[in-house]
Amino acid sequence: MSEVHGGNVWQFARRQRLPLEEIIDFSANINPFGLPPKVEAVVRDNIERVIHYPDPDCLALRRAIADYHQIEVENIIIGNGSAQLIYLLARVLSPKSVLIPSPSFSEYEIAAVNTGAKVIFPRIREKEQFQLQIDRLIPELKRDQVIFLGNPNNPTGQLTSKPELLKLAREAEKRRAAIILDEVFIDFLLDEEEQTLIKEATKYPNLIVLRSFTKLFALPGLRVGYAVAHRKIVKELLLHQEPWSVNHLGQMAAIEALKDRQYIRRTRKFVNKETKWMFKELMKIGNLTPYTSCTNFILCRLKNVSSTELRKDLLLKGILIRDCSSFRYLNDRFIRLAVKRHRENLYLIKALKGDC
Amino acid sequence: MSEVHGGNVWQFARRQRLPLEEIIDFSANINPFGLPPKVEAVVRDNIERVIHYPDPDCLALRRAIADYHQIEVENIIIGNGSAQLIYLLARVLSPKSVLIPSPSFSEYEIAAVNTGAKVIFPRIREKEQFQLQIDRLIPELKRDQVIFLGNPNNPTGQLTSKPELLKLAREAEKRRAAIILDEVFIDFLLDEEEQTLIKEATKYPNLIVLRSFTKLFALPGLRVGYAVAHRKIVKELLLHQEPWSVNHLGQMAAIEALKDRQYIRRTRKFVNKETKWMFKELMKIGNLTPYTSCTNFILCRLKNVSSTELRKDLLLKGILIRDCSSFRYLNDRFIRLAVKRHRENLYLIKALKGDC
Repeated sequence: MSEVHGGNVWQFARRQRLPLEEIIDFSANINPFGLPPKVEAVVRDNIERVIHYPDPDCLALRRAIADYHQIEVENIIIGNGSAQLIYLLARVLSPKSVLIPSPSFSEYEIAAVNTGAKVIFPRIREKEQFQLQIDRLIPELKRDQVIFLGNPNNPTGQLTSKPELLKLAREAEKRRAAIILDEVFIDFLLDEEEQTLIKEATKYPNLIVLRSFTKLFALPGLRVGYAVAHRKIVKELLLHQEPWSVNHLGQMAAIEALKDRQYIRRTRKFVNKETKWMFKELMKIGNLTPYTSCTNFILCRLKNVSSTELRKDLLLKGILIRDCSSFRYLNDRFIRLAVKRHRENLYLIKALKGDC
Repeated sequence: MSEVHGGNVWQFARRQRLPLEEIIDFSANINPFGLPPKVEAVVRDNIERVIHYPDPDCLALRRAIADYHQIEVENIIIGNGSAQLIYLLARVLSPKSVLIPSPSFSEYEIAAVNTGAKVIFPRIREKEQFQLQIDRLIPELKRDQVIFLGNPNNPTGQLTSKPELLKLAREAEKRRAAIILDEVFIDFLLDEEEQTLIKEATKYPNLIVLRSFTKLFALPGLRVGYAVAHRKIVKELLLHQEPWSVNHLGQMAAIEALKDRQYIRRTRKFVNKETKWMFKELMKIGNLTPYTSCTNFILCRLKNVSSTELRKDLLLKGILIRDCSSFRYLNDRFIRLAVKRHRENLYLIKALKGDC
């Protein structure tokens, strides 16, 4: 499993015999500001309470999320990371057929195949700048199907507009098909509130939105994600979820994280500015073409070097990048780079200039 | 889900408007010594590392467990608590028929029913002191069946001997049936090493042993359990497990916990002595009959009070007990009491004397 994802710094550290702190990880798309200090403090203060089972209903956290998005507790389910929810949704919806516009996050396919579904992969075309074409997708929709969509999509960094997605949702509804809209990277957008379909997900009978604390609050190690959907869907998911799925420290960290609106604003401003800067710098590198991105990572096409070679060369400089050859419809000419802190990004650009 | 388990102190605290620290929780069977100090320190020291994804392969933890039990890494899978592994096993083995001698832990049934299996519940008889009769179980075994057994069994506290279990395992093998042996309470036994079937599980093609860090090391809030089985079974389970199932702090805590052999020895000695003392004290209470137990909880039959009434009365004294009326073949005349620290147990006995 570990070979198909970014962010496996543990494996890298073991292989390179390097301390974890000497690795600059551009393969995982995590908030470069790190853990908010108050979140860290709350985790620290709650260690003694791990002698109790975690709240199996995650009620305090669901209340905090409900308050944050102005929705109801009954529309929210918390997961052991959004990964647990992807698998749970695949099992509970249990469709005969699944549509995954690709390239996209590999777990959609694994979760769908696990349930025995037939999976169809409409191609998101490079010559269209990896922009998803909803009008071309609609004719492919079948009755009772499930569609997985990343928005923004990973690894392409492209956003589909809200009117387009709502058009798809209405067409899906006619066919009793469900849309699982993975918004785990939407948190880095300046206009997140205008782009998210969270409010719509509480009303539509067939629209599920996935979100995560992992990326925005830099806590992948704690495993907290959530889904927002119609209360009937949430009820069904809760019935099938393993008890005590979300550990206590994760629940406490997430509650505290949502309070820090200043951190959220600061992150969005920085990522927006820094991604634009990094795109421009990458454009200057002759042997590499970056694709525009609305979020905190950039997909690049390589010219005279393969992704495996480049990854290996950069490892020697303590830099870990995402080789995209495992993504469907991509190959060993693609890499994905996270946007990190400015001095780290500078170091990466410098290293790329030497290697590309 | 939360109504069918002990240990939901969060719900109780909410309802009673009590701070968590004022509740004495006899409903969850957790080591009364609490978190080992070094484990707490390791969790504290690792908070900053939650900005990385946890090791998806849990390799350092699996190595520590392999070393502890003198088995191989390939025989071990780590779970988000043993609860995740119960569900994962049910799905991956996907039997048409499941055998659950009962009363027993409620999650076996829920996990089995979730997969659509037909579930049969042979009765563990009260008049036989809730001692499982293997010879009566063997004729019920069917081809390709899965059998869930707790050893010691929850909530009865009874142990089935190793020779008896191995006889069952051999009979099961003839029918290509699998045994899921839940040993999460075996850690409190003085002779744990003689009783566990961990070594056998690595060799038998059809024997899976479940273990947990939750009970012995008092860290239910961190969610770490594991299964030991033949490497072919482990490989199959790993293929179907959600990625990053085990959070980073849980992995680090568990590695550290296994080093503290002194804490393990001290716990076993205390629990053994204290359970015997508590049993004797409970025997003195006229309106209650305790059943002997080999581990850290005691099942009791009530005479002139119902479990719901007694639970309610004790709540007023800040004591939470496990009402056993939700267990199959038990009713509102049964309660389960955890063995806690001596002064807490004294307080419980005193309260029971007033209420029973």
